Amino acid sequence: MTATGPLTGIRVIDLTRVLAGPYCTMMLAEQGAEVIKVETPDGGDDARHIGPFLGEQSGYFISINRGKKSIALNLKDETDRGHFLKLLETADVLVENYRGGTMEKLGLGWDVLHPKFPKLIYCAISGFGHSGPYMTRPAYDMIVQAMSGVMSVTGYEGQPPARVGVSIGDLAAGMFASSGIQGALFHRLRTGESQKLDISMLDCQVALLENAVAQTFAKGKPPGPIGARHPAIAPFGMFHTRDGYIAVAAGNNPLFRKLCATIDAAHLIDDPRYATPPSRMDHVAALTADLNAAFGKRDRAEWCALLDEAGIPCGPINDVADIMADPQIAARNMIISVDQPGIGAFPSPGNPVKSSLFLDPATRPAAPALDEHRAEILKGLG
Amino acid sequence: MTATGPLTGIRVIDLTRVLAGPYCTMMLAEQGAEVIKVETPDGGDDARHIGPFLGEQSGYFISINRGKKSIALNLKDETDRGHFLKLLETADVLVENYRGGTMEKLGLGWDVLHPKFPKLIYCAISGFGHSGPYMTRPAYDMIVQAMSGVMSVTGYEGQPPARVGVSIGDLAAGMFASSGIQGALFHRLRTGESQKLDISMLDCQVALLENAVAQTFAKGKPPGPIGARHPAIAPFGMFHTRDGYIAVAAGNNPLFRKLCATIDAAHLIDDPRYATPPSRMDHVAALTADLNAAFGKRDRAEWCALLDEAGIPCGPINDVADIMADPQIAARNMIISVDQPGIGAFPSPGNPVKSSLFLDPATRPAAPALDEHRAEILKGLG
Repeated sequence: MTATGPLTGIRVIDLTRVLAGPYCTMMLAEQGAEVIKVETPDGGDDARHIGPFLGEQSGYFISINRGKKSIALNLKDETDRGHFLKLLETADVLVENYRGGTMEKLGLGWDVLHPKFPKLIYCAISGFGHSGPYMTRPAYDMIVQAMSGVMSVTGYEGQPPARVGVSIGDLAAGMFASSGIQGALFHRLRTGESQKLDISMLDCQVALLENAVAQTFAKGKPPGPIGARHPAIAPFGMFHTRDGYIAVAAGNNPLFRKLCATIDAAHLIDDPRYATPPSRMDHVAALTADLNAAFGKRDRAEWCALLDEAGIPCGPINDVADIMADPQIAARNMIISVDQPGIGAFPSPGNPVKSSLFLDPATRPAAPALDEHRAEILKGLG
Repeated sequence: MTATGPLTGIRVIDLTRVLAGPYCTMMLAEQGAEVIKVETPDGGDDARHIGPFLGEQSGYFISINRGKKSIALNLKDETDRGHFLKLLETADVLVENYRGGTMEKLGLGWDVLHPKFPKLIYCAISGFGHSGPYMTRPAYDMIVQAMSGVMSVTGYEGQPPARVGVSIGDLAAGMFASSGIQGALFHRLRTGESQKLDISMLDCQVALLENAVAQTFAKGKPPGPIGARHPAIAPFGMFHTRDGYIAVAAGNNPLFRKLCATIDAAHLIDDPRYATPPSRMDHVAALTADLNAAFGKRDRAEWCALLDEAGIPCGPINDVADIMADPQIAARNMIISVDQPGIGAFPSPGNPVKSSLFLDPATRPAAPALDEHRAEILKGLG
């Protein structure tokens, strides 16, 4: 793995736990970096204790820590702290996701580290960032999804807001952090300067709001949830076939006409309510009902094949087992296999950054046992 | 802006439309790159024609194209194509988000471009990537959210799947692309080598599935939607106060006890059903009802203040207007203002990559009118 990306030879010291930080450093590992997890001796990363379990190992932990190394160090113990500081001398990047203020309490804030390790890039990921009134508050994915407005636009009209079913509060922070770190490495290579990055999970959710902020400003009120359809384009949403849901996007007039012809609903083409994109939006509920009536006559696989042939954007609403078995995902190597001792081949999402230069192997090295690489890592420190 | 990030001096030629691509190049612009949008002369980027509108300008377009330059070129016209190729000579990065095969039809595929422009990094963003059986299929956000399984875990149990209310199908692809491009720039600076990046929107959704793949493998069946609670930890979800919803995360025993004491529900501490994390998960419906009964006695602002004081992770379920007015978001400069001619100060999400080295101004330059920078850009080509 370390020879398969642009970050080959880059060493990342990883103090992070659970999700936002580990997701960030997993992406850095996928880009070729060496990632050394520094874990607490009493149980290590909390993710080791979150299910699903396979025997005694956490599948959750494996999914986001494959290919990393582990050393257990107590940063409050003098000897271990000495190891940690020696380790930082060899490092390019330090990533942590404590709440704001914790690294300073440990005597390891940027103001201390930067003079000692002038080349070290330091990335802090926290719930609310290292400034502002909420700086020291604890947060989790659910909290920042809630506070950011992301939940307020997710779910169905007239029903309670829904959480995004993947932990986007953590994942977005991990993605922005990994992106920022790569920019910082580029800058360091050009100028010799290192920097501190201060990534807030809440900030990262706000960065995903795109059109919702524009809508709130333009209309004077915030958007609400609208289920499974597009806010401004119709038909563009989810429909009921005989055996399941499909998503169809046929917003412009040529696609709408082609859609109606393809699903034996040609009478809708001349319906004056559906004549233009704005008029279809004005009658979106009636249009959805009419299309559902047509889609209800066949199974979703049949409809998908027919719509595909007609060039109409569509796809089944898959569950996770469906997509894990999808031929496109197989062709793209997007479910890789982790060689995990005691488990064997453990499936996990692959690397979506596909490059003409680097290998994209079908397997990944195991996630580490707690402290597994202690001897190797300490030996490297001399 | 061009002096506020690590990518200062990097020129990005941007053939992208609507969302995944423009979001990617907006992130590159936020990192300091110069982004030149090459648009079709007949109306330009489709996002210019998607609401909300402020006068004749699309607020949607402004939100994701601030600070970029625009030139209108017809790539099938000989003169314009000549301009485009000259422009590529000056460029570091080319980004496009056509469906697979389109650039080859235009005679602008990697195999043609790479020998001509050996230093150019080429990033393609498409629905399904440049390989596999779905390669040439069209896709939109809704389609890849549906196919990936992300929708299957979003929404409430026993109800239809919900779309993630922000366009995560596009945004995740934009984020992975921008991250990949920064890695590629780093690699080019170290080695001189350029590369093609092939980003698939569907791949990027799969990369967000994290624990859902592990669960499917471990349990032999895919997870379904679970509304607004955590799949494995309780209490960790949304509760009803007297005047709105709050999110509370108090999964471990000390936090759970503190929570019960804080919300005048101390009797729940000794309830044997709620004695341990696993037993709380086994009785999550009863626990939620009991906690809702307690939370219903006060308003959400009161509860948030009390829980904050007790150190229990919590937050209100905000709408987008709430978060735009939030003091933390103000302190973090996460709603910036675009100086847009004809509109004035237009609010938009800021840059979540906060750095100790670079400025983070409170305003951004305008989004361009179609072809606004033609003269300036052509002059620069000599």
